[in-house]
Amino acid sequence: VGPEALLLWKSKSTFTSFGVFFLQMGWGDLGAFGEPSKETPNLDQMASEGMLFLDFYTANPLCSPSRAALLTGRLPVRNGFYTTNAHARNAYTPQDIVGGISDSELLLPELLKKAGYINKIIGKWHLGHRPQFHPLKHGFDEWFGSPNCHFGPFDNRALPNIPVYRDWEMIGRYYEDFKIDLKTGEANLTQIYLQEALDFISKQQASQQPFFLYWAIDATHAPVYASKQFLGTSQRGLYGDAVREIDDSIGKILKHLQKLGISENTFVFFTSDNGAALISAPKQGGSNGRFLCGKQTTFEGGMREPAIAWWPGHIPAGGVSHQLGNVMDLFTTSLSLAGLQPPGDRQIDGIDLLPAILQGKLIDRPIFYYRGNEMMAVRVGLYKAHYWTWSNSWEEYSKGIDFCPGQNVSGVTTHTQEEHTTLPLLFHLGRDPGEKYPLSFASDEYQRAMERISVIVQQHKATMVPGEPQLNVCDKAVMNWSPPGCEKLGKCLKPPKSDPKKCFWPH
Amino acid sequence: VGPEALLLWKSKSTFTSFGVFFLQMGWGDLGAFGEPSKETPNLDQMASEGMLFLDFYTANPLCSPSRAALLTGRLPVRNGFYTTNAHARNAYTPQDIVGGISDSELLLPELLKKAGYINKIIGKWHLGHRPQFHPLKHGFDEWFGSPNCHFGPFDNRALPNIPVYRDWEMIGRYYEDFKIDLKTGEANLTQIYLQEALDFISKQQASQQPFFLYWAIDATHAPVYASKQFLGTSQRGLYGDAVREIDDSIGKILKHLQKLGISENTFVFFTSDNGAALISAPKQGGSNGRFLCGKQTTFEGGMREPAIAWWPGHIPAGGVSHQLGNVMDLFTTSLSLAGLQPPGDRQIDGIDLLPAILQGKLIDRPIFYYRGNEMMAVRVGLYKAHYWTWSNSWEEYSKGIDFCPGQNVSGVTTHTQEEHTTLPLLFHLGRDPGEKYPLSFASDEYQRAMERISVIVQQHKATMVPGEPQLNVCDKAVMNWSPPGCEKLGKCLKPPKSDPKKCFWPH
Repeated sequence: VGPEALLLWKSKSTFTSFGVFFLQMGWGDLGAFGEPSKETPNLDQMASEGMLFLDFYTANPLCSPSRAALLTGRLPVRNGFYTTNAHARNAYTPQDIVGGISDSELLLPELLKKAGYINKIIGKWHLGHRPQFHPLKHGFDEWFGSPNCHFGPFDNRALPNIPVYRDWEMIGRYYEDFKIDLKTGEANLTQIYLQEALDFISKQQASQQPFFLYWAIDATHAPVYASKQFLGTSQRGLYGDAVREIDDSIGKILKHLQKLGISENTFVFFTSDNGAALISAPKQGGSNGRFLCGKQTTFEGGMREPAIAWWPGHIPAGGVSHQLGNVMDLFTTSLSLAGLQPPGDRQIDGIDLLPAILQGKLIDRPIFYYRGNEMMAVRVGLYKAHYWTWSNSWEEYSKGIDFCPGQNVSGVTTHTQEEHTTLPLLFHLGRDPGEKYPLSFASDEYQRAMERISVIVQQHKATMVPGEPQLNVCDKAVMNWSPPGCEKLGKCLKPPKSDPKKCFWPH
Repeated sequence: VGPEALLLWKSKSTFTSFGVFFLQMGWGDLGAFGEPSKETPNLDQMASEGMLFLDFYTANPLCSPSRAALLTGRLPVRNGFYTTNAHARNAYTPQDIVGGISDSELLLPELLKKAGYINKIIGKWHLGHRPQFHPLKHGFDEWFGSPNCHFGPFDNRALPNIPVYRDWEMIGRYYEDFKIDLKTGEANLTQIYLQEALDFISKQQASQQPFFLYWAIDATHAPVYASKQFLGTSQRGLYGDAVREIDDSIGKILKHLQKLGISENTFVFFTSDNGAALISAPKQGGSNGRFLCGKQTTFEGGMREPAIAWWPGHIPAGGVSHQLGNVMDLFTTSLSLAGLQPPGDRQIDGIDLLPAILQGKLIDRPIFYYRGNEMMAVRVGLYKAHYWTWSNSWEEYSKGIDFCPGQNVSGVTTHTQEEHTTLPLLFHLGRDPGEKYPLSFASDEYQRAMERISVIVQQHKATMVPGEPQLNVCDKAVMNWSPPGCEKLGKCLKPPKSDPKKCFWPH
């Protein structure tokens, strides 16, 4: 998990697109979404100049699968970013994961390349760190960032420190060459990522080369960090400092586009890969506003995301949309902006949001809430039906791991996996955005809504062809021991013997 | 409880003031404060043209005491709007209350009169319904509305229906002459209150007479209602319909001021008398955003309120203030606008907010959270110390009366009155606006903050002279049996024998 961005630009033609796909910033972390400290003036201004999406979702309550979904336009259960080791488990790409993004998946940058785009990812990739999963093998032309989260520091014996790449090769490791002070929370990484973005944009503008920039920074992911000049500047503590720095950076990127005169052909989208991690709150976790629970769960707090579209001169300023949106739509929408068709040989879950963004249309479509291999819930219109409920196990909860701190809705935030497939729990998200009051099973409203929802779910399940699960096997031998380029730096480490095992996913 | 408004205008001079003091609209009910349906375009525009207060409080988590505090500038424990029948109990003015606003209290309209203002209250008075408490005996020149909440319908035998007054006399009763359809939620009362406001403003403008308008409507108080044209228009159900109608009405009032050319000398303030009543949710209750609990409690959800100041040409558009504010400040601020001094013979708790509103200054002052006769908590800067915690009793809770539905913070949302006076529970509201994570008693931060807070609390308690409690005695004989004017309407009812008793306040 970590924040990210999308940027797509075509000179002299119609656009650039730049989507900030933000790690773990919750729905309630922006002033425009009601954060009581209101410390995001740049994002709030982005919203007032662009369009705010109030009903926008990620494809998964966890980082890697959401990122894979964004770049493939497909649900994780289709693109392989899930596990079948146990029922309904969140899985991602830690260092010992063997899998990653399959060559058979078509990623957005691969497709944009055909239309002449130069594609760059800045920040966390998270779709697999083994050589075959390298982003430059999957359509990106440039990369500055890391394959995994900035966890650490590690001892380089049991665990190697996470490498930072420039393009094909590593140029150092976190905590060694790229410092993060866990005591003070100081790290200047966001400033480095900002400069990378500004330089890339300048270069592309100078060469009149259309581009796609995916800015996937992760300062708001625990361990949270901020640069010195932002430390202590927020009412919200270190997490707020990180948010302020990200907000400031996005303001600078947007101003840079304006200064270069390309803002009117640059489509920019800001969103997040999962809800705020309430387990890290209050010091290292954000806010999901009034929504239930957070990251790891399929309640609204886990999957409803802040979202802003910005494209001066095209998107009406100050617009607000209730279009049900999903990060997967950024795949289809970007292709549409580039004049490309989505691949016809596979199921694409993302839709083209341009009619919603440019003409204020509302496109009827469901939102599916998956946890691993299970469809936990579905939203149709204002109704959300839970087919399964689970926060986490009693065992984990009793150890203090709480995905819903201070919240407890009887029969909803359950600590055992509760099946409701024959009689789903139904909520009206307009009257009850906090998912506290299930509708009466006997009510006409329940009957009417479920009739509609059941057809959609039946069709979804009947046509679902799950992909080969990529997140089942773990092996310490595949960790970032000797990434390409390590020799030049004298940073190659000796891997242990291969010992593949089923990964353990506790929730 | 019921929404209200303040309007103060001085022709050719500096201003009018118009404060919407809104019944039970929670902090999270406005789009500008992050309500996910974003259905308050007029209030949001009011905020974008004026100043948003993010840290604004009411003086009590219940209606009558808050209204008494607004109009006197004094805490309820000083102005008598509290009970000593039991410890830390919320009390208000039901029909059988014997007490009301004392003649010894000086109300804002009484003082403004001396500066030539014409004062009108539209909506719910709630400071006592017996003859000596009539608003026209306490400084108002005009009244259209009711002395109590629009509960009912009653049978006129055990309980009389609530009268609606025009000035000195009743002109009908709720459910009889002023219809509220509990089945459909239809009532056109907000439209009537709106027309009253527009007519009053036109009249005052025509006669160049400065005025103070207190618009205290209560459509969002259960039983919630809306006019036919607003029914079914909200994503949020009937409560949302009521909010939309109020939002629309406020938009019309502001436009009316602009059309008459007096907006630049009209000071308008919008706020609420208590947090959203979560016991009435989801159908009849609003949202307190991410704050803890609601009406009846001294957690943030019970007392932090949406607040907007509007005064075109004077208040910088789009401003946001973190000034700790309180409804009592509207008393002092309005006097300041009128060039009047607050009374010097008594303790006034409200401060003049003009430096915060006009010059962006931050005035250091504490916020006290009272429940009846007890100071439950205090906020100083970003710290809030709870000296007592209580949601409600186990007995009530077990009957399904829940002031914190879906929320449960161990040791905080307690169902017994927990005393923490020797070691208060301390929260940092910037990092933890939801009051979920008490600071460690052993931390330096706790020590430093409590040193400062203790001095403030000590001084507050040492100088506190409680007023004579007005909400101790109840008597069925004092109900609205025969209000003035009932003879003309044939609506006089026979009161039962007087039988004064201690009122019972369960929470």
